Amino acid sequence: MRKIEHLGIAVKNLKSSNELFKKLLCTEHYKEENVEGEGVATSFFMIGETKLELLEATRPDSPIAKYIEKKSEGIHHIAFEVEDIHAEMERLKSEGFEILNEIPKEGADNKLVVFLHPRSTNGVLVELCQEKRS
Amino acid sequence: MRKIEHLGIAVKNLKSSNELFKKLLCTEHYKEENVEGEGVATSFFMIGETKLELLEATRPDSPIAKYIEKKSEGIHHIAFEVEDIHAEMERLKSEGFEILNEIPKEGADNKLVVFLHPRSTNGVLVELCQEKRS
Repeated sequence: MRKIEHLGIAVKNLKSSNELFKKLLCTEHYKEENVEGEGVATSFFMIGETKLELLEATRPDSPIAKYIEKKSEGIHHIAFEVEDIHAEMERLKSEGFEILNEIPKEGADNKLVVFLHPRSTNGVLVELCQEKRS
Repeated sequence: MRKIEHLGIAVKNLKSSNELFKKLLCTEHYKEENVEGEGVATSFFMIGETKLELLEATRPDSPIAKYIEKKSEGIHHIAFEVEDIHAEMERLKSEGFEILNEIPKEGADNKLVVFLHPRSTNGVLVELCQEKRS
């Protein structure tokens, strides 16, 4: 794992949270993107080498809708950049970590992503993400 | 704000969590430190330009003990590095953010730290930290 690629933050309203994080970070979000498969609308801020990814649910069965219902707004996950997502999945499985999706799925920002179950990672929802190769 | 200086992660047992994060990140923690004022024992891992700071409560009235009791283990706060903590506090107050401690306090890792109330920051406990000048 090379760096923290992004932190995912669950928000109720992307538009007002974009304003809030602009004031907090003194920088504008640089893009927005919908991820249909996950039922989320996202926006991205850059801070150093890491992105903050704000996540608003776009439908009631979105994981973000469920998260906010259960825990309210806040830090949702931490995403580590990996070079080879399949190799890293194998390594982590052999170390006893629990992979939530056995087949990497399409995330925002041109990434392949998998999640580790928080019960195997100290309550932290961990994402691995690898840039898609063209 | 220049970068994410660290992420604070609340854990029940520093020793077993050090082992877990070593397996996750493929790197050892590089130091441990007690912060008496906060009632926490900490350990640090480096990943890219950001640290992961594991936090175990050392007494029942520690903020980490209360956090774990209420929310269980997981990501506790996000800390941004600032050049001038007093100037940044003034700026954020004028933008409507709520500062939790008006006087910066001694954090781990030779830092002066202040926290922003999560109700002013989308449920995210935000720390500002500035390297102490000698």
